[in-house]
Amino acid sequence: MSEAVPGLPVAVDVMGGDKAPEEIAAGALQAAQETGVPVLLIGDPDYLKGLPKTPGVQSEGATEVIGMDEDPGRAVRLKRDSSLVRCAEAVRDGRASAMVSAGNTGAAMASALLRMGRLHGVSRPAIATIIPVPGAPTQTVLIDSGANVDCTAHMLVQFAQMGWALATERFGIAEPRVGLLSIGEEATKGNDIVKEAHELLATGAAGPQVKFIGNVEGRDVMTDHVDVVVTDGFTGNVVLKTLEGGVKAVVGGVLAALTSTEDVKEAARAVMPALMPLAAELDPDTYGGAVLLGVNGVCVIGHGSSSARAVVNAIKVAQHAVEEGLVARIEAVIGSARSVASN
Amino acid sequence: MSEAVPGLPVAVDVMGGDKAPEEIAAGALQAAQETGVPVLLIGDPDYLKGLPKTPGVQSEGATEVIGMDEDPGRAVRLKRDSSLVRCAEAVRDGRASAMVSAGNTGAAMASALLRMGRLHGVSRPAIATIIPVPGAPTQTVLIDSGANVDCTAHMLVQFAQMGWALATERFGIAEPRVGLLSIGEEATKGNDIVKEAHELLATGAAGPQVKFIGNVEGRDVMTDHVDVVVTDGFTGNVVLKTLEGGVKAVVGGVLAALTSTEDVKEAARAVMPALMPLAAELDPDTYGGAVLLGVNGVCVIGHGSSSARAVVNAIKVAQHAVEEGLVARIEAVIGSARSVASN
Repeated sequence: MSEAVPGLPVAVDVMGGDKAPEEIAAGALQAAQETGVPVLLIGDPDYLKGLPKTPGVQSEGATEVIGMDEDPGRAVRLKRDSSLVRCAEAVRDGRASAMVSAGNTGAAMASALLRMGRLHGVSRPAIATIIPVPGAPTQTVLIDSGANVDCTAHMLVQFAQMGWALATERFGIAEPRVGLLSIGEEATKGNDIVKEAHELLATGAAGPQVKFIGNVEGRDVMTDHVDVVVTDGFTGNVVLKTLEGGVKAVVGGVLAALTSTEDVKEAARAVMPALMPLAAELDPDTYGGAVLLGVNGVCVIGHGSSSARAVVNAIKVAQHAVEEGLVARIEAVIGSARSVASN
Repeated sequence: MSEAVPGLPVAVDVMGGDKAPEEIAAGALQAAQETGVPVLLIGDPDYLKGLPKTPGVQSEGATEVIGMDEDPGRAVRLKRDSSLVRCAEAVRDGRASAMVSAGNTGAAMASALLRMGRLHGVSRPAIATIIPVPGAPTQTVLIDSGANVDCTAHMLVQFAQMGWALATERFGIAEPRVGLLSIGEEATKGNDIVKEAHELLATGAAGPQVKFIGNVEGRDVMTDHVDVVVTDGFTGNVVLKTLEGGVKAVVGGVLAALTSTEDVKEAARAVMPALMPLAAELDPDTYGGAVLLGVNGVCVIGHGSSSARAVVNAIKVAQHAVEEGLVARIEAVIGSARSVASN
């Protein structure tokens, strides 16, 4: 990441997340100090006053907090002075370049959508999550990982476009491989919506840049066979959480085995350091958070349990997206397919 | 498992699977010798003639083979003398107690359904797969893991019943915890079909025995929080393959780390034996295969890459299901809910 970047700060929702405000503020201050990205802390004014003065760090008081379990629509409508809503307004009003929150995911989506607005031509914003691929140079973008439970084939085509744009921005690859999640490689496999989306993607509905490699299966998600996995928000959320649980179960099993007897425990000391890079690769905190795509601004949504390290990484992710023009990339790819369609 | 069980043999499709016929026949002979379960080998007559005479092993020649990639419906219709179709007929005609195949999954399902028939009251047979739970006393039943791509809420209720019956039979537990796969614990979370199924299950539509614990999420599948995870065949297949891929990626990452340098490799020798039980727990061959539920007979479908060890375990699984009356359990639970509904 670049250092001492000039320009607008990244707005950070200090009150959002299971470990808020302490870990969130600590991560934001660390990001400002270590990466030079300016940050705008938004949260409880008394809490913010107690933080050490740090170069590159501004603060704005917000008197309300949206809880992790509150109804998103209602909370965003009623809590106009919540830290989350105010973060989205800071982006809308040009006081921040991007927003980062580890709070209520639905409320973060609703705040971003209602305050920043939807990009022209996008039917539904979607959440893209980064899935680690152990040992591979880049990860996999999973889109939609939970924003839209019921989807049309047309929405899946747009997810393909937005996921493609994120992969070009994040991974710096010119031709990300875009796959459609199904239950077999053949075009005839899948439910009705997947079959229709396959037909659309195979005939270029996502535009000339988007390289569609066909259907992929669940077993491909955590491999280097595909860069962008397109699916509806129900299936995507199930996939994301299934992988979370599966990784946790296997890692837990390995740790239990390596501490099963005193002799093994002793021997395991020598191999533990070799396992640490894998542990870091599998830790969601490494990737900072999911990205809400299709809104008019950069919005990074961290895991509820985000640590300070996750917040640092989320700010880096947001800054990279701003510098590399993620929103403009999405507008361009959505626009190019629209102009093709209207020819 | 019991030894030297009298009674009908388990029919084994010797020609089905990537490693057929050698590994399949080897597994069947081993099962007959080691577990005392009689087997009926069905396959190429010349190949079967070359096998050693073994007590408890009978053979039947079948002149055709259904390939792994053939269209299931067409193959079963046209290849009437295929080993797969003949296995299902052996069960139908009372010459075998159950069938085992590691061949074309769709064709195995079609053979079983067309030859054995559907159980009274079952709308759609479904595939139940056993998901390992490292360190737990029992595994998780995932149903449907691929038979029915588009499902109604009523079908999901029957999957709950059939999965419940399998869990009571396989794990010997009186009150398996049955959960509905969704994207949040609240009854209001999920797509329309899941919400409707939740309502039905919560109001007892699966009958008085079936203990519905509410929605579960992807992260619960590989844990001891639930015994039966109910979902449609599209989502279930994605979950199954996602876990396959996730486990492979993590295990691969651990092995790569443990062989990353000569020093680590040397140190890892001492911890490898401690990891072997976990490797066995995670290996699908340990569980023998998936079970097709809702047909009038026991049908175990192995992974395409089944080894001899997988075949031994599949035969044990089939025999256990026969001895413990799996089919009768399904009939009873389907019938009990029907009679409740008609009261």
